[in-house]
Amino acid sequence: MSSSNIILSPKRGAERTGARERLLDAAAALIIERESIEISLAEIAAKSGLNSALVKYYFGSKTGLLVALLQRDAARALAEMEELLSMNIAAAQKMRLHLRGIMTTYRRSPYLNRLLHAMLHGPDEPVRREVHRLLVQPVFNCQRKILAEGMARGEFRPVDHGIFYLSAIGACDQFMQTEGVLMLSHTGADLDLFRDQYITHVVDMVVASLAPTAGR
Amino acid sequence: MSSSNIILSPKRGAERTGARERLLDAAAALIIERESIEISLAEIAAKSGLNSALVKYYFGSKTGLLVALLQRDAARALAEMEELLSMNIAAAQKMRLHLRGIMTTYRRSPYLNRLLHAMLHGPDEPVRREVHRLLVQPVFNCQRKILAEGMARGEFRPVDHGIFYLSAIGACDQFMQTEGVLMLSHTGADLDLFRDQYITHVVDMVVASLAPTAGR
Repeated sequence: MSSSNIILSPKRGAERTGARERLLDAAAALIIERESIEISLAEIAAKSGLNSALVKYYFGSKTGLLVALLQRDAARALAEMEELLSMNIAAAQKMRLHLRGIMTTYRRSPYLNRLLHAMLHGPDEPVRREVHRLLVQPVFNCQRKILAEGMARGEFRPVDHGIFYLSAIGACDQFMQTEGVLMLSHTGADLDLFRDQYITHVVDMVVASLAPTAGR
Repeated sequence: MSSSNIILSPKRGAERTGARERLLDAAAALIIERESIEISLAEIAAKSGLNSALVKYYFGSKTGLLVALLQRDAARALAEMEELLSMNIAAAQKMRLHLRGIMTTYRRSPYLNRLLHAMLHGPDEPVRREVHRLLVQPVFNCQRKILAEGMARGEFRPVDHGIFYLSAIGACDQFMQTEGVLMLSHTGADLDLFRDQYITHVVDMVVASLAPTAGR
């Protein structure tokens, strides 16, 4: 299929969306298969059954496609985060749901964490800024709001939001290493159960650090 | 200076040690300057004032030199860890010192964390295994011993050591991101003070998660 077929077809709008999504699906499937974000345009084209020129057409470049993939996977999580912020529940419960949401998102999109870190520490400054704006800043702001609510109500002790963010995100991000550590610890436990326990451990640990009686 | 001068000199032993350390010092200085581990043999040679052939002679390859650098920086931390394990103090205090030790090591060798992760997730399987053996396994084993002591004495609640390791290391590793987050939070706080507070926050948070009254 040539790119002009897609671009000039009367059913252009619908096919465009279809092709765009198929390219993203193909890239996601390849990253999962390879356990690596090092995939080529030719491979994305072969997997999707589309011409690799369409990647340039829709996304500008392979990096543009990867940013769009990150954005697509993050969209659902960010919508849930916005909804969470508006809920009328205790700040501690809000923080528990927020942290659980981060790790559930990683579970849903197993390559999201790797993609995110590769782009945040990659050589491309505009990409770093874009990914920061898309994902880092919203999570940072969300935590800052929940912390402010909890401190205002006396539910939380005073905690610097930057320090809280780093320690919480650090523990959440390690969710992606659960498989490796399970092998290292030779307990033969079930991975899904181990991951459930990891999420519970991290949520309990991080939220407990906010209790008025925590710290020194 | 040609490599044969070094190798054939009568003062060979002393000069060998000197040249080896100078190459490691040069690589460390370059990584700190660049804030990147992407350094070339030619640059290491120029910085050290030695012939780049000496890198092959002492370390086999640039990767070999980077592993040796990691090993040199980790040696002091690992010796302190061994000493800690033999101390006759409460398990909680031992864990506090252990976690503080990890972050202090990162502070002392600002590139250690980046080097460690690049090698643990790099393409070279023997290097991954070697770095795992040198650094990951000892830290994992140390925590397992402290946890076992604490649980045996009723100081700690029962906690899976794999889950504990991941969550604790995740929060410790983020120590290297303190500078970025301090800029993000626009509080204008002092970096050294912020880092001190980060260490205290993480140590308090992680050790509190082990208390018999923690969790659900």
